[in-house]
Amino acid sequence: MRADVFRANLEITRRGLALFSFGNASGIVRELGLVVIKPSGFSYDRLTPTDLVVTDIDGQLVEGTLRPSTDLPTHLALYQAFPGIGGVVHTHSRFATVWAQAGLTIPCLGTTHADYFRGPIPVTDPLEPAEIQSNYEWNTGQAIVRRMADLDPTEVPAVLVAGHAPFCWAASAGEAVELAAVLEEVARIAYHTIVVNPQVEPLPAALRDKHFLRKHGAGAYYGQKR
Amino acid sequence: MRADVFRANLEITRRGLALFSFGNASGIVRELGLVVIKPSGFSYDRLTPTDLVVTDIDGQLVEGTLRPSTDLPTHLALYQAFPGIGGVVHTHSRFATVWAQAGLTIPCLGTTHADYFRGPIPVTDPLEPAEIQSNYEWNTGQAIVRRMADLDPTEVPAVLVAGHAPFCWAASAGEAVELAAVLEEVARIAYHTIVVNPQVEPLPAALRDKHFLRKHGAGAYYGQKR
Amino acid sequence: MRADVFRANLEITRRGLALFSFGNASGIVRELGLVVIKPSGFSYDRLTPTDLVVTDIDGQLVEGTLRPSTDLPTHLALYQAFPGIGGVVHTHSRFATVWAQAGLTIPCLGTTHADYFRGPIPVTDPLEPAEIQSNYEWNTGQAIVRRMADLDPTEVPAVLVAGHAPFCWAASAGEAVELAAVLEEVARIAYHTIVVNPQVEPLPAALRDKHFLRKHGAGAYYGQKR
Amino acid sequence: MRADVFRANLEITRRGLALFSFGNASGIVRELGLVVIKPSGFSYDRLTPTDLVVTDIDGQLVEGTLRPSTDLPTHLALYQAFPGIGGVVHTHSRFATVWAQAGLTIPCLGTTHADYFRGPIPVTDPLEPAEIQSNYEWNTGQAIVRRMADLDPTEVPAVLVAGHAPFCWAASAGEAVELAAVLEEVARIAYHTIVVNPQVEPLPAALRDKHFLRKHGAGAYYGQKR
Repeated sequence: MRADVFRANLEITRRGLALFSFGNASGIVRELGLVVIKPSGFSYDRLTPTDLVVTDIDGQLVEGTLRPSTDLPTHLALYQAFPGIGGVVHTHSRFATVWAQAGLTIPCLGTTHADYFRGPIPVTDPLEPAEIQSNYEWNTGQAIVRRMADLDPTEVPAVLVAGHAPFCWAASAGEAVELAAVLEEVARIAYHTIVVNPQVEPLPAALRDKHFLRKHGAGAYYGQKR
Repeated sequence: MRADVFRANLEITRRGLALFSFGNASGIVRELGLVVIKPSGFSYDRLTPTDLVVTDIDGQLVEGTLRPSTDLPTHLALYQAFPGIGGVVHTHSRFATVWAQAGLTIPCLGTTHADYFRGPIPVTDPLEPAEIQSNYEWNTGQAIVRRMADLDPTEVPAVLVAGHAPFCWAASAGEAVELAAVLEEVARIAYHTIVVNPQVEPLPAALRDKHFLRKHGAGAYYGQKR
Repeated sequence: MRADVFRANLEITRRGLALFSFGNASGIVRELGLVVIKPSGFSYDRLTPTDLVVTDIDGQLVEGTLRPSTDLPTHLALYQAFPGIGGVVHTHSRFATVWAQAGLTIPCLGTTHADYFRGPIPVTDPLEPAEIQSNYEWNTGQAIVRRMADLDPTEVPAVLVAGHAPFCWAASAGEAVELAAVLEEVARIAYHTIVVNPQVEPLPAALRDKHFLRKHGAGAYYGQKR
Repeated sequence: MRADVFRANLEITRRGLALFSFGNASGIVRELGLVVIKPSGFSYDRLTPTDLVVTDIDGQLVEGTLRPSTDLPTHLALYQAFPGIGGVVHTHSRFATVWAQAGLTIPCLGTTHADYFRGPIPVTDPLEPAEIQSNYEWNTGQAIVRRMADLDPTEVPAVLVAGHAPFCWAASAGEAVELAAVLEEVARIAYHTIVVNPQVEPLPAALRDKHFLRKHGAGAYYGQKR
């Protein structure tokens, strides 16, 4: 588990999803109520598995000598609201961040998007000044949870925080970082698609669901038997 | 032949034409009626030649223990309709996918395009919901075949599947993946060309044909004697 | 110190912030009044620490056999005007140069920007012909200093020289080159943000200050204790 | 000299200025009237110095067993018209090709441009159908020469062939390929500059000349003494 979170953090930098020490990955062991996360402002170059910080579900330090990522409260808010998830990844990947800064939902324009996300990638509402002043990172998590209220987090496992950057989640940190990489590609292709054709329509629902469901759920037939 | 298909699959990832396990290459031995294709959802990192799946022209498994690519029926439709081809490559390369998602034909705007494709790269019509519901991948192949009805598949050896991504074909899988790489470059240059000059005209037919024919056919004089 | 300036110069090319010999990094030892800078037009490939040129604060050669960077007078103008800084970096990084050529201030559109710069990145006024004719590089520095007159150089530690490219400064050359890399990323994301949403508003001041101040100053809580 | 042409050809691919076997570099030994050029359609991966083809100034084969680049007559036209040059490089670099396909001159928008080119990069007029039909590559050279009639080829050492791609020239093949790399960067930055600010004005002549002349001619003071 610590190994999975460690590898997921390295994947953030290996796949170019963040500069310097930006971004972070975490995982949760539900039975023990323990969360493992990257230390704050820590360069990926010198990160080792033992540098990872372990806290309980309320963020109290359980193991480690370094400060946890400042974004820990956002991760905790997601773990508390979405009981089915096991890993969270936050990046500053370029085009996902562009859409987040633009305050725009990423429409589902192609099958690459639909293979992983069953609908548009939503963007949160801006925080109120009071929500920024105190408990900012926790309130960021609450803004995500509010935005996802009518959505199934296993069908749309990513969100854009307005003016900031994306968060992704999955069964594990390793799967969440794969989603983060796909999200960046999807964000990039969607960007260029609407530049070259501003009138483009979203993918028809039948095609979107076909692609999502051939990879997910009971009727999936993509990939190898597990 | 298996070696050619194996190398073509590796070229997809080596040239950055698809993320993760996206995309696939296949080849056909016409005399034996055998098709070799990448296994479904299989990472390029751990692919070996023996992982490739062999089927007959109707997709019945002949050799291999893995599931073939879900896109196999699309490849089979192309092999059945275009008797002259020996390899098919499907990628999710970035700018070809942009044009496919935008639902736009790639106009022939320069000699790089004309060196390989004697005219615009067409885009298929959308599938009907019923065509998506059952035999989706085979129907995708039929949409390609319909779109190519008035075109010579040796002169325009690529197509964009609307909302999805490109397919290329050639005498071998190795040549098809080279086309896929050129298509991506052509798609990328065409994209930026129309952004910077929305009024740009297609290349004059005389110049387009000059470039295509100095590389293809009886009067070709580009390259070394073979 | 010489080692810090040497490494900062290598970072310029290692991070892709300039082609060939473009760009330069310098550092100052305030107590001795000595400035260390890259030699002019010198390829990063063959640069060694002993190639660096040492001058006094007026640009008089103190040590070294090579000519200093032609931009030395610009660096000196910054060291004289901003007593708190210890390093200056000049790059031709792609998107920062795009904004400089466009003559446009980079608005603060996201938290990545606000983590490092507490407000827009300003652009200088054009030089008068007479200022170009003689003492051009010194006058470039004066144009920067004039533009920064109402700004705190520790809160906005970068500027775009109109029609040219960016300069960044910090406590050391090493920190300045990190700023130059972040500036390029910020410039690139801001560019794509305004292309996809020309009506985008700057980040609210509360969110901008929250991100800047959680990394800088007395109340900072990002990163590890030092 | 053969070594210089060999290295210049490898630089084309090493700097990403062309895919596959696209592009070519040549050099001329004026005293002997001999031209050395890349063989046609030959992969850079397996090119060795002895594969280079030697011809006289009229293109008659002097040494080598391979066919010379099909673009040889274009190179010869430039050597005949511009007596001061010693090397020619043709690439299909991405953004220079975008401007060529768009049929647009690259305006001089910044000092990076002015450091190497004292004015806009011109684009040729389209060829007449008859000029395409026979002696196409020679006529391409003539179109370049006509376009350069009022320009000094040492001050504007590059041109865009309409619908095709750029040619650069210099005292040697090695210098010409450096120009080709700078041209690509300049083309890319200019593209993004006019996208973000369509009303941008060219660099003032005083600033353009200052930058060009601090690197070229009798008053140059950039770089090290030679």
